[in-house]
Amino acid sequence: LSESADPGALDALRAGGKRAMASVLARLEAAPADPALLALLDAAHAGARGQVIGITGPPGVGKSTLTSALIRLQRRQERTVGVIAVDPSSRRSGGALLGDRMRFELDPEDQGVFVRSMAARERLGGLAPLTYAVVVLMRAVYDVVLVETVGVGQSETDVAGVCDTVVLCLQPGSGDSLQYMKSGIAEIPDIAVVNKADLGQLARQAKADLEAVLAPEQGPGWRVPVLLASATAGRGLDDLARELQGHAAHLAEQGSLTARRAAQGESWLEDGVREAFGRIGLDRAAGLPGGLALAPGQSPFRRLHEISRALAEPYAGSSD
Amino acid sequence: LSESADPGALDALRAGGKRAMASVLARLEAAPADPALLALLDAAHAGARGQVIGITGPPGVGKSTLTSALIRLQRRQERTVGVIAVDPSSRRSGGALLGDRMRFELDPEDQGVFVRSMAARERLGGLAPLTYAVVVLMRAVYDVVLVETVGVGQSETDVAGVCDTVVLCLQPGSGDSLQYMKSGIAEIPDIAVVNKADLGQLARQAKADLEAVLAPEQGPGWRVPVLLASATAGRGLDDLARELQGHAAHLAEQGSLTARRAAQGESWLEDGVREAFGRIGLDRAAGLPGGLALAPGQSPFRRLHEISRALAEPYAGSSD
Repeated sequence: LSESADPGALDALRAGGKRAMASVLARLEAAPADPALLALLDAAHAGARGQVIGITGPPGVGKSTLTSALIRLQRRQERTVGVIAVDPSSRRSGGALLGDRMRFELDPEDQGVFVRSMAARERLGGLAPLTYAVVVLMRAVYDVVLVETVGVGQSETDVAGVCDTVVLCLQPGSGDSLQYMKSGIAEIPDIAVVNKADLGQLARQAKADLEAVLAPEQGPGWRVPVLLASATAGRGLDDLARELQGHAAHLAEQGSLTARRAAQGESWLEDGVREAFGRIGLDRAAGLPGGLALAPGQSPFRRLHEISRALAEPYAGSSD
Repeated sequence: LSESADPGALDALRAGGKRAMASVLARLEAAPADPALLALLDAAHAGARGQVIGITGPPGVGKSTLTSALIRLQRRQERTVGVIAVDPSSRRSGGALLGDRMRFELDPEDQGVFVRSMAARERLGGLAPLTYAVVVLMRAVYDVVLVETVGVGQSETDVAGVCDTVVLCLQPGSGDSLQYMKSGIAEIPDIAVVNKADLGQLARQAKADLEAVLAPEQGPGWRVPVLLASATAGRGLDDLARELQGHAAHLAEQGSLTARRAAQGESWLEDGVREAFGRIGLDRAAGLPGGLALAPGQSPFRRLHEISRALAEPYAGSSD
């Protein structure tokens, strides 16, 4: 454990209900480098207790309905649930499209479920850097954390960087699903769900297609199950719950939960260093004569070379 | 024009055919900061002549077939064509999936068409930074440059950062198309094509749906046309060629081609500064005691804070 972790603050967060979580998240967005928050994050990192489950897949396959059904199922089993709903943002307008996620249709009085919407990272289309911190806080407080991402942009691969178990949700029939899988995300899911399985033969065909694509990607000791479900009709959810618990048990047995989470932490750390220094570079480049603006016809290649040379000087001799 | 541009090298590239272009691209990949290359890039940046056309859209809608048809159409009109085919890479394996693009079915003896495959940027799923330099070289040599990107990950938004005219390709019927448009890329296309328009009523419905989504996004003086096409049957391609020329004329009239390309250059420059400094930060962090590795249970939040503090010192007093 980090010597500066603050278990007292974590206890208060655990005891404080939705109001306490909302307040901490607001502070995190306003001043992520606040020392008290840092101590709380250290304690939360050391005190993880919940399973973090990602729900991803292309638009329109029923991820929100599936997420709602999973929330209700967990609540019936008296598990507390934190939900992070990642909204795709329009790149040019920056606006979130899906509003405040009233669509989960939850009882607002239920203190055992906390929903937080987060915009996708504007420029990259993936998860915002803050998402990892929110996951770490929630997994220290709730029994289950659900991260729903819309599979557009980078979010369907980023979700594997913050979750213990990734559920890929597809729908039968369009043929797009298989194309989507072939486009390089076949290695992402731990569990695959063909939703809208009311579609009968089409659903079974989609399941067979998926199993064929997933077959070579099975990790050691874990065969990615392909389930049929209908989130609206409530079918296939018990199977999904069983596979989710099975995957959690698998990770715990193999010691791979610890390894997966450590790798996620290191990856987040690298991204953080890269971003912090990128910002420093942009600030310093903007302060040079000419800055980052190009005169009409000016070559950006030459300019990058000039800026790199001008800014390399402070580093000379200051490192090995 | 940049004082260090080398128009002689550009003339040699223009006269040297496919062999010369292949050789320059190989040098660019091996040593992008080579001064002779930089002088060539400066000259190419100043000597743009071709229209850069992006072809994007979700997997499976027939983008490669449409690109092939466009290549043949341009060649019949005796325009030279450069093609950049961006392959999605598997994030974990890093491999390109689509091989060497034999699928365009081109005459290998034709000196007027040059095809280059490029892997998508591994981590972000978008275009590799080198893509912009390749576009700048090609648009100084060929009459038309086609950039085909598979609409997975970030590439469908990144393509707008290197192209004059973006063609979004969709297919009728699945309903996914509209979902896809609503997911924040409605502002990207200058021209939309509903391919596989042999599907009749479904195609007309898709066209109407698209027009409704695109309507509020029309830029000043340009109404995004929605075309029906069948790339395999060769239908709708003349319409597309006409709209492509129309968009080029529109950009030239409005002076917006210059503005668009200048904005692309500045955006590439910012990315380049951010990346160069990010790499410097990672190198320096790796050199600190403890580096970027986390001990079991060590908090990445605390570690990022420590690294940021340790590396902030060389900057103290060296800038305003």
